[in-house]
Parts: sequence; structure tokens; C-alpha cells
Amino acid sequence: MPPSIQQILSAVEARRGDVEHLFASLAAGSPGNPGILRDTYGAGENFAHSLMADHAKALSLTITQDAALNTFATWQGSNPQAGSIIMGSHLDSVPHGGNFDGAAGVVAGLAVIAALKDLGLKPACDVIAMGVRAEESVWFGVSYIGSRSALGSLPDGGLEARRIDTNRTLAEHIAECGGDPQAIARREKSLDPSSIQAFLEVHIEQAPSLVEMQVPLAICSGIPGNFRYPEANITGRQDHVGTPRRFRRDAAMAAADLAMAMDAKWREEEAAGVPLAVTFGRFHTDSAVHGMTSVPGAFAFSLDVRAYDPSVLARLEAFFLEQVARIERERGVRFELGKRASAAVGVMSQKIISEMQTAAAAAGLNVTQIGSPASHDSAAFAEAGVAATMLFVRNENGSHNPDEAMEINDFMKACALLALWVADHVGPPLEETVTRANTCVETSA
Amino acid sequence: MPPSIQQILSAVEARRGDVEHLFASLAAGSPGNPGILRDTYGAGENFAHSLMADHAKALSLTITQDAALNTFATWQGSNPQAGSIIMGSHLDSVPHGGNFDGAAGVVAGLAVIAALKDLGLKPACDVIAMGVRAEESVWFGVSYIGSRSALGSLPDGGLEARRIDTNRTLAEHIAECGGDPQAIARREKSLDPSSIQAFLEVHIEQAPSLVEMQVPLAICSGIPGNFRYPEANITGRQDHVGTPRRFRRDAAMAAADLAMAMDAKWREEEAAGVPLAVTFGRFHTDSAVHGMTSVPGAFAFSLDVRAYDPSVLARLEAFFLEQVARIERERGVRFELGKRASAAVGVMSQKIISEMQTAAAAAGLNVTQIGSPASHDSAAFAEAGVAATMLFVRNENGSHNPDEAMEINDFMKACALLALWVADHVGPPLEETVTRANTCVETSA
Repeated sequence: MPPSIQQILSAVEARRGDVEHLFASLAAGSPGNPGILRDTYGAGENFAHSLMADHAKALSLTITQDAALNTFATWQGSNPQAGSIIMGSHLDSVPHGGNFDGAAGVVAGLAVIAALKDLGLKPACDVIAMGVRAEESVWFGVSYIGSRSALGSLPDGGLEARRIDTNRTLAEHIAECGGDPQAIARREKSLDPSSIQAFLEVHIEQAPSLVEMQVPLAICSGIPGNFRYPEANITGRQDHVGTPRRFRRDAAMAAADLAMAMDAKWREEEAAGVPLAVTFGRFHTDSAVHGMTSVPGAFAFSLDVRAYDPSVLARLEAFFLEQVARIERERGVRFELGKRASAAVGVMSQKIISEMQTAAAAAGLNVTQIGSPASHDSAAFAEAGVAATMLFVRNENGSHNPDEAMEINDFMKACALLALWVADHVGPPLEETVTRANTCVETSA
Repeated sequence: MPPSIQQILSAVEARRGDVEHLFASLAAGSPGNPGILRDTYGAGENFAHSLMADHAKALSLTITQDAALNTFATWQGSNPQAGSIIMGSHLDSVPHGGNFDGAAGVVAGLAVIAALKDLGLKPACDVIAMGVRAEESVWFGVSYIGSRSALGSLPDGGLEARRIDTNRTLAEHIAECGGDPQAIARREKSLDPSSIQAFLEVHIEQAPSLVEMQVPLAICSGIPGNFRYPEANITGRQDHVGTPRRFRRDAAMAAADLAMAMDAKWREEEAAGVPLAVTFGRFHTDSAVHGMTSVPGAFAFSLDVRAYDPSVLARLEAFFLEQVARIERERGVRFELGKRASAAVGVMSQKIISEMQTAAAAAGLNVTQIGSPASHDSAAFAEAGVAATMLFVRNENGSHNPDEAMEINDFMKACALLALWVADHVGPPLEETVTRANTCVETSA
């Protein structure tokens, strides 16, 4: 007899204390003053992986790490042929980040495994909680480093990217933490997409849409792709504050012009019903030389543009490059856009979305669907051909800041829905397993 | 017999070697890597004043310093009742500045005195070369510190302003250099405006207008006033890069919006023939927390708006404040404008301008008139009721940068015009002086 919906909900609820303790331990070990610091391939991220492994050992799971130092906590199934179910997310954070962005997906995976183990379930397939490395691209300017390394799809040049604060390469950082950058360079996969049944990622919502809707939970309908210019520069000419307009080559005004052009385009697309987002995260004059009485001669910025449709991204990038050319012409400045990065649009599994909707309805869980505003490892899995989806948990204050406001009540609902789906998909037992299972039932009957 | 035009031009030209040597010594002693560093009430400015004093002693001038440590090199006249002629400018620089901005006015004053002494002229009035302190407001965010201290008009609170790099007050810096901030606070004047016949300031042009006109020299027709917000801040909310538009409180987009609004207003006023300038010199996200994947929650900027007409300044400031209110409303951010500073429009002496035009014509010097784009100490003297004007020397590359490009040939023409005017205005000798002068003439005859 498979466990009932009510048994699963109760078993998940029984793990609430564990969940709270694990979140608290994560926060305590990675202070960011203010907020959280779990730096990619640095002390903060290493701590979180080590804590995850300790917690998983206590659940008698099998702990492994791959060349990129992703951590896998595996509840081994009886049938090696059954496609595995992976639940996970990343364990790194932005500087001054929050405790839940990323880590919630790992805590959920461990909680679901613990609850289903508590119910005596015997999975046919492997059920894995995965702590993914290096998702926060603020550090190396490269997307999905951990998941794409595991899937053998880290792009060329990725290992030579330099961490923004240490200026050392990704390869150096991985090696220093005990990983094997050469194996990543050789594209050695630690995960075979064809042997994965599903990748499921619980994540806090990064905007207050669910708060606005008064719904605790959403199934992700899609993950945006993006194009990025992490390190763009504008060169104008530093001049005296009194320089007449016609002589100026003001790098800051050029930047403001670009930002307002992109902002107007965004407003226009949004009015036409096209979801996208435009962010100039770094946007600054040069602190070594700027001052009240000088026209800025240099400006630096980063740009991230994201959308759910590749043709929208292409249109926006063409518009961006037109604006750059116009502003160079009109304002006598020169743009050096630097390296370009991008991520493909992440298509979520319609089958899983539909099954989760059904499960939620059966369990009386209030759930909606939203597009992810942000990029997530699930997109890398989807791009590799793995059926993937995400669950977003309501959060009032956005993420990438110390004020993330996910309530544990809402988080436990995400764990419950995840557990319901996983319990339904751990697969038919092998024949010998059936025998053993029947024996068990008889014994316990 | 007063010296002839040709004698004066020759005597000035004979000081070319001195001029070149003094500029070279100034540059050698105040390297800014790149450019020049003569920090206000710091080692660089102190060096320049000390070098000026040494040079003036070699010319047998009387050296004095006042409470603010302005340096006065006085060629004493015979008639204590005659209004003095002061030639000077500031000796400080912006960080990574050029060698000529400011210092040219002091070198010119010393060269003119040297040339007229060489001709045996005996002035009735005192003829003074003045090295002014602390003109570059980038350091303390206060205009005309040296000249207004000398004139007893430094505004309340000025002595408490903090130097942008050291964070120590102006009073502390002045005291540390050996000055007397208490005397400045008591408004003790070292200069009585009613006893000054003229303040004359040679300065490099800070835009390439004269290069464009192919004229080496201009008489200044007016100095702009300004309003300034040296340390304004915008507070929004740091959010994840994927946050939808309607939830954002993006401090950088708010800043870009403000800059473009001010830029558009500037373009509109200029098209209507109104000269002004708008500069956001510092314009930046917060380097402690900004990153490619976060919506900026904080932004800092400085603003300087300058014009030649007080009503234009009032109109622009009202527009600025309207835009701040609009952007707060539209973008959910909050502006903290911080302290406000301002300087009055500087009206130049029409009498001196006219006399200089006549002298230039008589000597065959090619000279035009332009409004100063920049603020200058001459404006502080004008505001105190002193007849003032300036001479601008052609310079291709603007100022406040290491690439200032004043040619010594052009500078010597400014010295020549200044010497012609001064020679005409050192005044009628006192009777006893006449007698003595006659005796001298007889002796030397």
C-alpha cells in the first residue's frame, strides 16, 4: 500500500523542526554582515556543502561529490535502470544575500527524503538531494557553473573566468577547494541526462507576486533566458565642470541615456504584454577620479536582460546595440562592451506541471503558476533535455538581500507538494522488491 | 617717462625663462600620478605656496600670509592711500589635475611684477601677487575658501566642512598647516575690498572655445553662479535581477531618469540661447553591494548647475526639485539631497574690460571676450565689491585633467596684456616720490 496523501503530509510536517534547525545552522555559519555570505568556491559555500553532507549522513544517505564539487545525497533505489529523481538547488549566495535563496531547494530535498523514509517507502529509483555549486553569477559572471559542469555543458572559457573579488580563475578556485577542473574541461559528466527522470527545484520567489496574489506557492511555468554584458565600459573625456555642452564627452550622461532608452523599451514591451526585465546592476563613475567639479570621463556598468522567448531576447539585444551606436554618435563617447554571456530560455516540463497541479488539488494545497523572473539551475537541466520544474515559495521582500521573508509554513507546503509528486514517481518495485515489500506488509499487518 | 608699450612687451618677454622654470618646478614638486596633485590644505598645496614665496623673495618682494594661509607677495608702493592691484589665482588642484589651472594666475602676477621692476617703474600703489588657497571645491565642497576667508565672507559652517578623502574638517586642516581658523571664524579680513583697485586673474581656458576661434586670449565677460548638491543620495530597494518592473524601486534607473531630465532641460535652454551647464560629477551605485544580478537599492551623486543669470539658476533649481518629486512618485525611491551649496554670479568690471580691450588693440594683441564656464576666485572678489576681471589663455584639452595644453607663447601674451594694464594703473607718484624719482632719473641720466 502506498502511503496516503494524509500520511505524506503528516510525515513532511513532522520534519518541520529539522528544517528550522538546518536553516538556522546555515545562517549561523555564513554571516554576511549584513545578511549572508556563501561565496562561490569560497569559505561560505564550502561551509554550506559540508553542513548539507553532515545532515544527509544523519539520514543514512550516500554522500558523493563530483569534479565541480556538487554534493549529492542519494537515497538509493532498488532498480538501477529506473531514472533518478533529483531535488536540489544551489548553496551559494550573493554578497549580503539572504539565507533562503538557493538553500531552500536543498533543505526541501533533504526534508522530502527524510519524510518518505520515515514512511518506510522503498524507492525503485535513486532519490537524490543535490547541493549545486556556483549558481550566483555575480561571482564569476558565468551562469549555472555547477549544474552545467555536472551535465558536461560548461561553455568554453568558463574555467578561465575570474572571480570578481579575488581576480583568480574559476579553475584555480575549484582546484583550491579540492575539485578537478581538468575533468570539467574534458566535459566528463557526473550526471547523464538520459538517466534522470526529473529535476525539481524549490526556490523562494524573488518578487512579491505571490504576496500580491495571496497564494503561498507556485509551480514555475518557464525560466527566462538572458543576454548579459557583465563588464561594459564607456570612455568619454574628463573635463572641467564648466565645459560647454558642445565640447563634452560625458560618460555618465551617455550611461544615463542608455539606461533610459532601455527602460523606455522595457515599458513599451511590457505594455504590449511581453514579459522581460532590464537591470543595470553596476552603474558607476570611476571612484578613483570622479568628483563634483569634473565631467565624468569614464563609466562602468553591467547589463542583464531576460525574457521567456528567444525572439524577444534577440529583438532587445539588437535594440541595445542600436542605442549604443546612437549614443556613441551623439555624445562623442566610446563603448567597450567587454565579454558577452547568455543563457537559453528554460522550458519546464508540462507533464510534471500538470501532475503537480493534480496532486495539489487532491491535497487541498493552494497553488498557482508563474513564470520565473530569475535564472535557475533548472534551466540548465531543461537545456540538457531533463524534465524539470520548480516550486516557488511566497516571499515579500525579494531575494539577493538580507531581508528575504519566506515563512516556514509556506515552505512546508512546497515540501508537501514535492513529497506527493516524488512518492508517486519512485517507481514500480523490481520483482524481488515486490516480494520483500509484500513480506513487510504482511509482517506489519 | 612711463615705459612704452614696446618696452613693456620686451620686459615681459625677457621673463619667459623664469616663467618656464617656475611652471616646471611646480609640476616637479606636485606629481599626481597621472597629472598633478596639489591638495587643498595638504602637502601639494603647501609645496606650491612655499615655492611661490621662494620665487617672490628672489624678486625682493615682501611675503606675508594671512589666517587662511593665502600667500601675498607685495611690491610696495609709495602711497599708502592708493588702492592696491592684486594679480593672482589659486595654487591647489583637483586630483589628477593639470599644472596650469590656478597656478598660471600666480606665475603671471610674479612675471608682471618682475618685468615692471626690470623697467625701473616705481608704483604708487601696492602691486601684489596673491597665491589663493583652496579654490578647488572638490576637496571640501565649499567654494572660494581662500579668497572668501581673506575678504571675511566665508559662509557659516564652512570651517566644519570635511575634506572628502581625510574626513577631517577645514578648520583642522587649516590649523595643521599653521593657519588660524578662529580668526577666519571671527571674520577678520586680511583684505579690505575698499582699498583694492583691481583683482586680476589669469587662468587657462577650461574649454576649447579659444582653440575653436583660433584666438590666443580672451577677457572674461562674466563668471557663472551655481547651485550644488555635493552629496545627494537615492534610496530604493535592492532586489533580485528578475524582479518585475512593477515591484522595482531601482535607485540607478531613478538617477538616470533625473540625469536625462536635467540634460533635456539644458538642451532646451541652450537652444533658447541661455548659457548654463549641468554636471553629475559623481554618479554611482554602491560598490559595497552592487552586482550584475541585483537591482540597485542605493545610488549616490553630486550635482553642479551653473549659469550667468540668477533667475536662470532659480528656474533650473525649481525644475530639478520638481523632477526629484516626480521620480520619487513614479519610481518608489527616496532622495536625500544632503547639504546645498551655492555661489553668486560674478559680475566683471566693465571699466577694466574696456581698458584691456584698448590696451590690447594698441599693442596689436589678438583678444576676444568670453563668459567663463567655470567658477573662479574673481567672483568672490566681485561679490565683495572689488573691480575684477580675468584673462583666459587658449587651451585645447580642458582643465581638471593631466592633459591641459596651454602654450607658453599664449601665456606670455596674457602676461603682456596684464603688464600693460598694470603699468597704466600703478598711479601718480606722491609729491615726495616725484622728487625722489626725479633725483633718480638725474642720477641715472
